[in-house]
Amino acid sequence: MSIPREGTTLDPWYDQYAARTAGLSGSEVRSLFAVASRPEVVSLAGGMPFVSALPLEAIGARMERVMAERGATALQYGAGQGTPELRERILEVMALEGIHAGVDDVVVTTGSQQALDLVAKLFLDPGDVVLAESPSYVGALGIFRSYQAEVAHIPMDADGMIPAALTERIQSLRAAGRPIKLLYLIPNFQNPGGVTLSSERRLEIIDIARSNGILILEDNPYGLLWFDQAPPQAMRSVDSDGIVYLGSFSKTFAPGFRVGWALAPHGIREKLVLAAEASILSPSAINQMVISDYLSSADWRGQIDVFRGLYRERRDAMIDALEHYLPDLSWTLPGGGFYVWLTLSDGLDAKGMLPRAVKELVAYTPGTAFFADGDGRRHLRLAFCYPTPTDIREGIRRLASVVRQEQELLETFAATGPIDAVPDALQLGSRVISPPPNLS
Amino acid sequence: MSIPREGTTLDPWYDQYAARTAGLSGSEVRSLFAVASRPEVVSLAGGMPFVSALPLEAIGARMERVMAERGATALQYGAGQGTPELRERILEVMALEGIHAGVDDVVVTTGSQQALDLVAKLFLDPGDVVLAESPSYVGALGIFRSYQAEVAHIPMDADGMIPAALTERIQSLRAAGRPIKLLYLIPNFQNPGGVTLSSERRLEIIDIARSNGILILEDNPYGLLWFDQAPPQAMRSVDSDGIVYLGSFSKTFAPGFRVGWALAPHGIREKLVLAAEASILSPSAINQMVISDYLSSADWRGQIDVFRGLYRERRDAMIDALEHYLPDLSWTLPGGGFYVWLTLSDGLDAKGMLPRAVKELVAYTPGTAFFADGDGRRHLRLAFCYPTPTDIREGIRRLASVVRQEQELLETFAATGPIDAVPDALQLGSRVISPPPNLS
Repeated sequence: MSIPREGTTLDPWYDQYAARTAGLSGSEVRSLFAVASRPEVVSLAGGMPFVSALPLEAIGARMERVMAERGATALQYGAGQGTPELRERILEVMALEGIHAGVDDVVVTTGSQQALDLVAKLFLDPGDVVLAESPSYVGALGIFRSYQAEVAHIPMDADGMIPAALTERIQSLRAAGRPIKLLYLIPNFQNPGGVTLSSERRLEIIDIARSNGILILEDNPYGLLWFDQAPPQAMRSVDSDGIVYLGSFSKTFAPGFRVGWALAPHGIREKLVLAAEASILSPSAINQMVISDYLSSADWRGQIDVFRGLYRERRDAMIDALEHYLPDLSWTLPGGGFYVWLTLSDGLDAKGMLPRAVKELVAYTPGTAFFADGDGRRHLRLAFCYPTPTDIREGIRRLASVVRQEQELLETFAATGPIDAVPDALQLGSRVISPPPNLS
Repeated sequence: MSIPREGTTLDPWYDQYAARTAGLSGSEVRSLFAVASRPEVVSLAGGMPFVSALPLEAIGARMERVMAERGATALQYGAGQGTPELRERILEVMALEGIHAGVDDVVVTTGSQQALDLVAKLFLDPGDVVLAESPSYVGALGIFRSYQAEVAHIPMDADGMIPAALTERIQSLRAAGRPIKLLYLIPNFQNPGGVTLSSERRLEIIDIARSNGILILEDNPYGLLWFDQAPPQAMRSVDSDGIVYLGSFSKTFAPGFRVGWALAPHGIREKLVLAAEASILSPSAINQMVISDYLSSADWRGQIDVFRGLYRERRDAMIDALEHYLPDLSWTLPGGGFYVWLTLSDGLDAKGMLPRAVKELVAYTPGTAFFADGDGRRHLRLAFCYPTPTDIREGIRRLASVVRQEQELLETFAATGPIDAVPDALQLGSRVISPPPNLS
């Protein structure tokens, strides 16, 4: 059983990994972080909130005060579920989206990403199926894969996931004997699609999930960041037994604290706390206390208004630039959040085009990152949250130039012979301008 | 497939959980936190560092400075592996224990608990075996169980894990066709045993692991907190290919930041970063920056000296009190760290005795918490890290009174008939006074 330790660059522990580790791979978003951090590149890739809009020095003073007043508690281990003070404040935040719950039902986590990971760990056996929007959040797909689950994508249109398609897919999976464990949704300003699930569909989908005994995982990092009108109330506001709701301070306050939460039905919540304790013992006490302090004495609602205005302006800059520079393409029009989903012409491949785009000093996230099945090649995600309006316009101008070159290349080759068709299962391909028509 | 949602207090999702979730249960330590937090109870249960010994206001001022100078970075997402600055500083900390490594080999995590969780996730399939000391850290046992692995305990004596017993156990497990994935060790001031693995045995155990192709997981939260003399250098100092090393700021600085790390061979480190990103995206930037700042400009070595003096005094108070109040029992004499391991007389049950102890206003952790197999009933862990020397003496006085009452009860019943023998596989049962004799 001796293993080679020298004379090889291969991993000597290769044979020892768990089966689930085979599913672990660097996401396309990840490799982009390195590229996008070069200052000359206009990055429309990462979903980084514009934290410079926060009162940074005032937050620093707040930290100092927390340390002066309760430093020994702030630097100690805490309860695995999170502090009661922060959980109380989280109830106030969720009330803005129609959610009423008890303080015992909230579990504070290291960002809502950890909550997602823990829910997946609790529910997913190898081979289980998770239903998700088509496309869906890359970080969720990675987690589901890491527990050897399979993702079945359900088509969306401008009103979000299509209920009839959901029912159909459940029936076909059930007919094939597949166990469906979770229905994962980002109802508001979806990542990456930018669309919002309509009020009627929320109720329809809750009914479908309920009648099929499928737990809904409602991920809502962007709900409070609306531009024109508030989205419908959270799905959790009308169903407390069949939904695990995930919330985050990363977009409404700051990701650097890594504080998010899950709101779960009682039995699940008990297990979530145990899983959280097993994984990290307890979330950071100082970070929870600083956020509690911020929520209790700062004008956090006003700060969210500031973010809304800021991101609205950037969305408008991006849409204007798309209309100006890429009038022949189609895209979604987000009513909030961080993202526009762009569809290229037939035959173009956003992933293949990326190196040329980076050479032209603009970065984006290829659509394939948001599919578990290799789909999405014609699409790309454009994030308008971080760059200034001026940079957004310049970035779209550069992108248009790259698209034009690719288009010309394609036409040159098309004139000399057939090329492989690029498959496209997305229903989000058509141009959507407010008010968004139903494109199903 | 409709599931009951009303009219039952049972968990309606009970049938939906993953197989691994069956292994999730509240630890005995966990339920004690509630009890031990009552101010009238002298808690010798939890392993909470005495953070009040830190310069709390100076740390607050440090936070304010980080926010003023680099607030927008501190509140943003960061690299999944952790900041290069902190990883550089971590190399300096590890150098104190003889470890030389590259900055690329370090992965920053949400406490070293998360590193432990991620390593377990990477390596453990259901049914795999983890070798661990007997007894071992309750939080590690919980993680291994959560991935459906089985723990095989290897006996210790006053010099730590016994190499011959390790070899024997590996052979018998191999003969039974069992896959052994990890050898988990806390070589310094072990939790809960309080003993330290001798220098010779470190080399012997590395050889055994290497020749059997078993990855060592070296968990070292307490190594710098020695009282009388430094422990032998880290196992990782002599083997960089066969060991994943776990470090933590929770005991040498403060647990409230939840910052720890793993140092791993190249191939494993790459996968650890991917697993960490899947689980939490990135560790808290602000917390990493505050710790980097502390390590670069505060007298952190002097602070560790302060902790050493403080904990040495508390250890001495506990040992003195044990000699005074419980002279007939046996215990380990830790040369550092937080814990003494106490052995009761034959027939006594530390877990059964706990409610009476709490009634007498003293708390401890029953030995059974530290075994995967229900063993350890005659034992209990006493933590001297948090209470003052005066409280420690009072706690041991109360404990002695409880032990005496239990002893009398046992003798009364013994006089009237046989009672069940309490099994005891521990080899840490004999009294150990410095210099610790080898008791194997």
